[in-house]
Order: sequence, then C-alpha cells, then structure tokens
Amino acid sequence: MQFHHYGYVSKDPKRKPAAGIGLNRPAELPDTMDVLIVGTGPAGMITAAQLSMFPDVHTRIIERRDDRLVLGQADGIQARSNETFQAFQFANEIIEEAYQLTEMAFWNQDPAKPENIVRGARPVDDEHGISEFPHMIVNQARVLDYFARYMEWSPSRMTPDYGWEFLSLEVSEDPADAEYPVIVELKRVMEGEEEYTRTVRAKHVVGSDGARSRVRESIGRKLDGKQANHAWGVMDVLADTDFPDIRTKCAIHSKEGSILHIPREGGYLSRMYVDLGEVPEHDNHKVRSTPLEKVIEKANAILTPYYLDVKDVAWHSIYEVGHRLVDGFDNLPDDASDDAVPSVFLTGDACHTHSAKAGQGMNVSMQDGFNIGWKLGQVLSGRAPASLLRTYHSERHPAAAALIAFDKEWSTLMATPVDQLDDPTAVEKYYVEAEEFAAGFLTEYSENLITGTTEHQDLATGYPVGRRFKSYTAMRRADAVPTHIGHEHIADGRYRIYAFADQPAASEPSKLRDWAEWMNNDSESPLNRYTPTGGDRNAVFDIKVIYQQDYHSFELFDAPDVFFPRVGPFELQNLENVYASLSGDDFFEARGISRDGAIVIVRPDQYVAAVLPLEDTGTLKAFFEQNLLEP
Amino acid sequence: MQFHHYGYVSKDPKRKPAAGIGLNRPAELPDTMDVLIVGTGPAGMITAAQLSMFPDVHTRIIERRDDRLVLGQADGIQARSNETFQAFQFANEIIEEAYQLTEMAFWNQDPAKPENIVRGARPVDDEHGISEFPHMIVNQARVLDYFARYMEWSPSRMTPDYGWEFLSLEVSEDPADAEYPVIVELKRVMEGEEEYTRTVRAKHVVGSDGARSRVRESIGRKLDGKQANHAWGVMDVLADTDFPDIRTKCAIHSKEGSILHIPREGGYLSRMYVDLGEVPEHDNHKVRSTPLEKVIEKANAILTPYYLDVKDVAWHSIYEVGHRLVDGFDNLPDDASDDAVPSVFLTGDACHTHSAKAGQGMNVSMQDGFNIGWKLGQVLSGRAPASLLRTYHSERHPAAAALIAFDKEWSTLMATPVDQLDDPTAVEKYYVEAEEFAAGFLTEYSENLITGTTEHQDLATGYPVGRRFKSYTAMRRADAVPTHIGHEHIADGRYRIYAFADQPAASEPSKLRDWAEWMNNDSESPLNRYTPTGGDRNAVFDIKVIYQQDYHSFELFDAPDVFFPRVGPFELQNLENVYASLSGDDFFEARGISRDGAIVIVRPDQYVAAVLPLEDTGTLKAFFEQNLLEP
Repeated sequence: MQFHHYGYVSKDPKRKPAAGIGLNRPAELPDTMDVLIVGTGPAGMITAAQLSMFPDVHTRIIERRDDRLVLGQADGIQARSNETFQAFQFANEIIEEAYQLTEMAFWNQDPAKPENIVRGARPVDDEHGISEFPHMIVNQARVLDYFARYMEWSPSRMTPDYGWEFLSLEVSEDPADAEYPVIVELKRVMEGEEEYTRTVRAKHVVGSDGARSRVRESIGRKLDGKQANHAWGVMDVLADTDFPDIRTKCAIHSKEGSILHIPREGGYLSRMYVDLGEVPEHDNHKVRSTPLEKVIEKANAILTPYYLDVKDVAWHSIYEVGHRLVDGFDNLPDDASDDAVPSVFLTGDACHTHSAKAGQGMNVSMQDGFNIGWKLGQVLSGRAPASLLRTYHSERHPAAAALIAFDKEWSTLMATPVDQLDDPTAVEKYYVEAEEFAAGFLTEYSENLITGTTEHQDLATGYPVGRRFKSYTAMRRADAVPTHIGHEHIADGRYRIYAFADQPAASEPSKLRDWAEWMNNDSESPLNRYTPTGGDRNAVFDIKVIYQQDYHSFELFDAPDVFFPRVGPFELQNLENVYASLSGDDFFEARGISRDGAIVIVRPDQYVAAVLPLEDTGTLKAFFEQNLLEP
Repeated sequence: MQFHHYGYVSKDPKRKPAAGIGLNRPAELPDTMDVLIVGTGPAGMITAAQLSMFPDVHTRIIERRDDRLVLGQADGIQARSNETFQAFQFANEIIEEAYQLTEMAFWNQDPAKPENIVRGARPVDDEHGISEFPHMIVNQARVLDYFARYMEWSPSRMTPDYGWEFLSLEVSEDPADAEYPVIVELKRVMEGEEEYTRTVRAKHVVGSDGARSRVRESIGRKLDGKQANHAWGVMDVLADTDFPDIRTKCAIHSKEGSILHIPREGGYLSRMYVDLGEVPEHDNHKVRSTPLEKVIEKANAILTPYYLDVKDVAWHSIYEVGHRLVDGFDNLPDDASDDAVPSVFLTGDACHTHSAKAGQGMNVSMQDGFNIGWKLGQVLSGRAPASLLRTYHSERHPAAAALIAFDKEWSTLMATPVDQLDDPTAVEKYYVEAEEFAAGFLTEYSENLITGTTEHQDLATGYPVGRRFKSYTAMRRADAVPTHIGHEHIADGRYRIYAFADQPAASEPSKLRDWAEWMNNDSESPLNRYTPTGGDRNAVFDIKVIYQQDYHSFELFDAPDVFFPRVGPFELQNLENVYASLSGDDFFEARGISRDGAIVIVRPDQYVAAVLPLEDTGTLKAFFEQNLLEP
C-alpha cells in the first residue's frame, strides 16, 4: 500500500485523498450525471466502486431500499472473487470473518439401510492450488459493505443514493439530448417521505437491478431459456444437531430428497438449500407459499438418522429460478453500425439467472461489473475510445453462457437420485473436474482491442492471453519483502505492464534495458503518449520489472529509470517497482516465463491483455493505439 | 471469529453485542468510576482496550489532548506486539499498512576512503522464525486507532475522554472513601471551552502519562538512573536520494557521526534518528533547540557519498532520554503488609525510559498495559482475588529492568565509532544475538499465583512456563481449516486450557477422556466452580483439545462434551474447540508435547501459566484456587 507521497496520512491509508467530483460531491442525486447505476447488489456495487476511482466521472448508484442490505441473498465467494476483493483492498479482512471452504462432503443413501444417509466422498476443495486465495462463504451484505467503503474512501467519495426506485428509461436520439441521452424516470420511495416521480439524465445507465430488471425491460431485452423452474427452500438457521458435518459443505441425497448444506461464517449459522423439486408449468408461484415448518420438516427427513433442532431462523426464502440468459448485454441492436456506442448496459442477474447450487451467481455478477466499470471510467474520462464499450457484451455474454451451461449440468446431476445415475460417484467426479471453472478461472476473453493475440504465448506459458493474471511471489528489491505482485494491482483503472528481464545483470546492457530506455524516452512510447503531462508519471501505466537474479546480486538503482516514476507534489520516486525472482521459488519457472524475458500486459480488471517479446516495441505501441487516446 | 450465536450479526462481526456499562455508558466523564486510566499512549490504550472486555467494570481513559494523536512518536512494532494485536483483532489489518522489516543493513566507514560510508553486514531480521508475525514499523497513531476501535466495539462501548489534564491524586484512607479511595484532581483543557478543575474518584488509577508522569509524582515514585542523557534529532522525511538502502533499516556509522535509519509505511516516508551525542550535564535542554536544518545537514554529511534531498518533513523532534527505571510499579510501600492491595499503577514510559534505538519502547509499554488490564478486570468483576494486583509490579519491574540493561548495551555499541570497537562487526553480532530479546520474547515470569512451577515442563518443552504461548497450526476438526490456535486467543480476559490428547483414538477410553469427564462433571472442577450459572459455559475458560491423529481418522462428536460448551440464548454448541495435529506438520513434535498428552494453561495475556499431566487434576484445581473466586 502506497501513501504519504501526497502528504502525511494519519488515519486509515486506504482512504485516498479526495479529487474531482469528490471535492464537492452533491449529497443529493443530481439532475444529470455521467453514469447512473441501478441497484446496489454485488454487480452494481463493484461497478460503482470501480468507477469511484475515476473522480473526473460523476457516477451515482441508486437503490430502492432505504438503507444497506441487512441479511440474506448470496453467500458463496470463489477464489476469483477474493482476488477481485484484493483489488478493492478488503480481501484479507473479509477472509478473516468468512467461513473457509476447504473440503466438501457428499452424503448418499446408506446401501445397507436406505432410509439413512451415509458419508461418501470428501474431496478437497482446491486440490491444485488454483489460487492463493480461499473459497469461502460470507453474507452478501458484508461484501456490499466493503465495496461501499472502497467507494466512500475513493477520490470520488461516493455513497449510494437510497430510496430511489427505477421506473423506466428512454434513450433519446434528439441532438439536444446528445450530452445526456438516457432519460430516466425514478420514484422517491424513502420511508417517511412523500412519494413522487422525477426525471434524471445520464450519459450511461447500468442496470444491476436483478432478475426482474426494469432496465432490461426498458431497453427491450429478454431473458431466454427453455428449462423449467426449480424451487428450493432456503434458510439461514441456528440449530442443535448431531450431524457430524454440520460445519462442512455437503451435498446430501437421501431417499427423502436432497439438501445443499452450507456452513456460514461465525461458527454457528448454517444455510440449507432444501430441494422442493421442479415447479409445474402452471404452478403460478404457489410453491413460494411453502411454509418454513415444512422446509424444516423436510430437512429433518433428509438428514435421517441425524436430527436438526432449529433454534432460530435468521432468514428464509423460497427460490424459484430457471436457466435464462439475456439476448444482449447492452442496448445496441444487432444491426448497429460499427461505430455505434451502447448507452445502457445490463449486469448480473439482469442478464443471467440460474440455480444457487454452484455458488456462482454473485461471483459472475461481480466480474460483469468489474468489466464494465473500468471501461466506462476510461471512456468517460477521455482516456479510451468509446468503441471500448462494445467489448462489454462481446466478453461477458459468452462468459454467462458458459456459466449457464455449467450450472445446467451441475444442477441436473445434483437433482438426480443416486440410483438413477450410471455412476453413483458421478456427482463427486463432476465436482472435482469442474473445480477450476467453479472457482472462476476459466473465463478466457477472445482477441479484441484490449486482448491481444497468442502469437508470443510461449514467452509466458503461465499467462494465457485473455485469462486472469495469476499472481506469484517475488522479492521486492527496495525493502526485501516477498510480495505477491498481483496483490499490488488495485482497482484503480490502470494497466499493468510487467517487464520480465532477460539474463544479463541489472547493471549490464540487456534487452530489458533497451525496452526500458525506449519506454521512458521515446516520444512514441505509450508512457510518453498517454500519460498526462504534469500528473504522476505512473497515472496510466503501472510498470514493474522482475529480474531473474537473486535480489542481493544487484542494487536497487541498477534498475532503469522507467521503474522509478516520480509522483505527487514532491515528485518523489516510487521505489517499489523492482522485483527479483525468489531464490528457491523461481517466478520464471513457476509461470513459464522465457529466460529471454517477456512483456506481460494486464488489463485494469486483471486479465492478461498481451504477451510480447521485449524487443517488439512496435506491437506494444500498436496495441495501446487501439485502446487508448492521447490526453 | 465467532458470532451469530447471540443473534444475526449483519455488520462488522468484530463489533460485539453491548453489555453492562456499554448498554448505557455515560458520554461525559462521571464523578466516580472503577478504573481511571491517565493518558492515551500505547500503554494506556491497551489497558483500556483490555478492560473494555469487562463490561461490569466501569473504566474511563482521559487524555489532555483534544483528540486522537495525529503523528509522530514511536513506530517500531516487534513480532510480540503483533501477536498482541492479533488478540485485539487488528494484526492483519495493521500489517497490511505497515512497513515490514525483514533485514537490516549496517553501514560503516569505507576503509579505502574513510569520508564515505560502505555497506557491511545485512543480517536477516528473524532468521530463526521466532514468530509467524513480522517485525514492522507503523505510525503509533494507527496503533492507538485500532485499540480505540477494539474499545468502542467491545461490550463496554468505551471511548476516550479527551480534554482532561491530570493534576494530582491522593489515596484516601478514610473509611468513608473505601469504595472509591483514589481522589483525583483534573483540569478541563478542551479547546474552545473554559478551563476549570474537577475532582473525580476511582477504585484504581493507572498512570500511563509518559516519562514526566504526574501520577508517578503523586504517589512519590521516582525514576532512578545514572547514565547521562543522550540526544537525537528525529525526523519523518520525504526525500529524494540515491542512497540505495533508503527502504532498508540501517545503522550507519560514518566519520561524521551516526544515523539509525528506519523506512516507514507507505513506500516513501523515512524516519531518521541522527545522533547528536551525549548531552553535557548542565546543558539545561539547550540541545532541544538544535534547528531542523542542522539535523538535515548532519544527516547529509553522515550519508556521504550519497545525497539526501529532503522535500518535506512530516514531523521532527529532538529526543533527550536517559536510562531510568521507576522504583516501584504501584503505590505500595516496601513495607506493605502481605494483604495490602495497590490502588495506583504505573505503566509504560512512566516507569521506564531508554533510547529509541532498539525500537522497544512502545512494545514493552503495551505489555505493561496488557498485564495490568486483565488483572484489574478480573479483580474488579469479582472473578479473582485482589492479591492478583500485587503480581503486576513483581512481573513487570524485572521485565523493564531487563529492557534497560539491553538498551544500555545496544545504545553504547551503536554510539561507539567502529574504529574503537575490539571487533568491527560487534554491532551486527550483538544485533543477531539479541534478536529474540529484541522481538519481545524473552520475558519470563517467575512462579507466583498465576504462574506455576516447571515441575512438568518436560511434557511440553516448547511451552516454557512463564513465557508467552507460541502459537502453532492445527487442523480444526469441524471445518477442516488449518488454524493457528494462538490466534483464536483474543483479549477477552479468559484463561485458555489446551488439552493435548494422549495416544488412544478420540472415541476410545483415554487419559484425555478421563480429564474431560472430570472437568465437565466433577463439581470440584474449575469449570464447575468458577463458571457463573446461567451464563455461557465458556465464559471463564476456553478449553480446546488437540489430538495427535489425522483429523479424518475421527468424527467431530467423538470428542468429549466438555469441548462443546453451550453458549448464547439458544444454548448452541460451540463446535470449534476440537483440533488435530496436521499430517506432515506435527504440533506435538514442533512444540515438544509428550505423546502421553499434557494440559497447557495460558493466561489471559498469552503467557504460559502451567504445564501439567492430564491425570494431575489436583494441581490443576489447586492452581485456580489461588487465582480465581467462585461467583
């Protein structure tokens, strides 16, 4: 964490100095704004948190409720989400309060006594070390709290606008509305205040307003999906029990039905998804009136021979969800011209609905928001061309389709009685095989203006272009602290450029040195073209070097000047961009980096944008010409 | 972290439910209180934070300043302090914002060119893995902030009372004052308010009011010490420099003098202690008027051939400190009767002053406060006999004496020009040898009513009686999370009892099972004698078991009932007290635990109180008869 360079920071250093809109942000929702986000769920809040780091963009996020979410809703957090939380500076805090999921137990009918359940397999959750972060369970409300903190402590000093219900929007094509083309009708619904409607205008609207999204309706998008709805009774319970795996995630299939059992944070609470079966086509939501007592009774029947004496129910609900995917993630018609720019976007449950069984929903929704957030920020602050916004749909729609395909398979398997499976261990097997997908790491973006080709993939085999950058530990030269370099990548909207050095010593001539010289001094280098004059030298690009040699074999200032950008009012050198592979834990080997060095460019949302040879400055230059604008 | 068992916790779970005084705590300083702490430095704040966990004790902490400390003062944090911070639930947060100290560099005169400095040894900071926590540097103000949060989120909802200056106190022997014998004169000094004096009364006063303590003066205690004062110019600077170790802690000895250089948190700030030499006996504080420019000039001369271009000075001061130790840590005269109870205590700089060079001050002061805090809490809540308060002086006075002896040697060595040392590497050598002391781990309390004998030390050689409990990782059976068991020991005033099992399987008869049976069911067991009826079963003792076998070889409920205490309004079982040695990382081997099992009792301040055989319930019973009272 870097601070004090804009002056002494006495309080929590995660609170950044105010700037731009944050210097005098209107407390009340204004009539016009750059971005209006509808809904404070995970997708909306991460979008807002990311945009809050662009203080020259005025973003507002509205919520129908009076105040923050208190309880209920999603709770499963993939490792990929924890990596994302690290970018929003709260991973370690939320991990400390969460339930950590290290293994899962499968309970099936006891062949000897079919009315009883008996434990089957107990696979390890992340057997292959997919991430250094855990898989965990925590109340969605806490995730939202932490995003709210990041927003509030950002330069924009952003807070949600509660008590506003979204009614409808219209995208005006009237040239008079060119600056703020999206016209939005809202209703004031704050407890204790009179209701009234109001019109506001925005450059862009992000609909993060859930499965029954009115933003989606307003732009004429539809959820498609054939599969029938499935219902679950969901409850957060405090219970007395003799079930030995009460603190282990379990998939339980008994004669009486099935339960997905999820221990919750704090050591006592459990969430149970009790399967209520397929909903008949013309049920007309009758299933939603299933009484809580019946759900508890069914849970007890399923858990036989164990008892579950429910002492308190913190929250419960009947979920009824099908597998549905929106036909488009923005408001551009299929026949839009090549230079058309979408003005409305959909994220999260507004785009994709599916079962809760794989614990995917909140996670995928947050990746939607992380994706659109930085793109809107860069475009609206004039740093990137508007065409960047077209990549939102083209990247996230396939990701959502993959999720739904996965969830269909998984929930079908979960719902099939064991005796009807060809292989009685099929569920466990699928779970283990799907581990990497389920943890959120199989998203792979295709080539576009922010994702390069795989031509030079062999230079960094551990960094597949289009996949998320998988962190590794290196020794920070300045202070000899072994550092997960990916953890330094906070959600500030900047590109990261990792220069992996070739073999010569840091003080000797090398390809790395030539590259650094070019980057720092050539007037055509991205650093010189896109960095605003007068600002911090690392305002747009965060450039780090990783040497192959032990850190004691060279001196800090042997590294080229480009790695010591001057920042802040005192023009101090940032000294924390020089790293060395750890002795005995070689970064280059672990991530398949060529000994001839390589450049790895990482997007603001942590996805690998490009892998290039040190000497190929032409392609590097061309890459950023596609996606950045000169200030 | 355990929560939800008193009802659903929606916000930060570190915020505990209010109780006792916290339900209706007077916002204004009252006329009478149980404990009055004077001064919000590290010693005072930890005392208050610890006492805040005793909501039936009304504690107040006063401070002359208007508000929290903003900057300056101490910054060195030993690993032992981080262990302590873990008990106050902020270790990981403060580590994330701190500078981590992994190695130190020694710079001396270049033999070839004596006007220049050249790097000598560069020893690793914690070569022997003394603690899993780092040695670090962070602004004292942040340490205080975190203690303030713990207090405010405790059941007592405690906050400091700012704007009160301590004038004097008197301990009344008038029987009419028996309830609140300490009569304290205060002055209101809040900016913008009129000054006035006021009398308040307390059962106990803790003087944490620094080197010029008026509490100390009021009880007639004196600092003794012969050595002359030594002066340093201290400054927190933002600077441009070519000194390659600017981000490494350095002891620099040049022809021109010496500097202790300490990089600070945030990547840019440095603290430099520039040696201004011994202060002549009749200097009359003239040294304190040394101008900042002169200190910077001297720093530059010492750093030759490197430059230090100071851009901003966040804080600076001239320190003038000698080695002094108070003659007593409380107000009891030497000839006090055996049953006399001290009513006034001194902590931190009020008791011991020394150089800042070893980074010890804040750390030792916090251990003073941690020590007196739980003792006052237990005595005033009726849980322990008043004689417990006598152990404060007897434990902390020797610890302070050891600190001063260490610091004398260290600062003498640091102040000696290299060419006058018999061995030019003497400074580095001493530094490495003294590592364990400097990290705060050599404090060893002698036998007394809370520290048992070493008779059975061989049963747990890694847990020397009287030393701090050194944590280790075990597998928590309930949820399969590898857990540092010491990190679960929060500063809640409870004793910990770790039952290391003997060899039989958890479900089989064993000495462990007999012990558990006795503890749970024998009316004479400490659990049954000292636990208040109707309250949580783990209110006084937190009892955990560690099995030798792999966790999958037994079931959770194979462990005896005593490890599943019922808590909260729903009388839920706490399921997180059953542990297993990790396969391939054996707790028993790492900490020298006998395969026949052992009981290790740990005090509320994390020091090992006793090591006993499982079968010696008599000694266990007798131990607590000395230091606990039946409710």
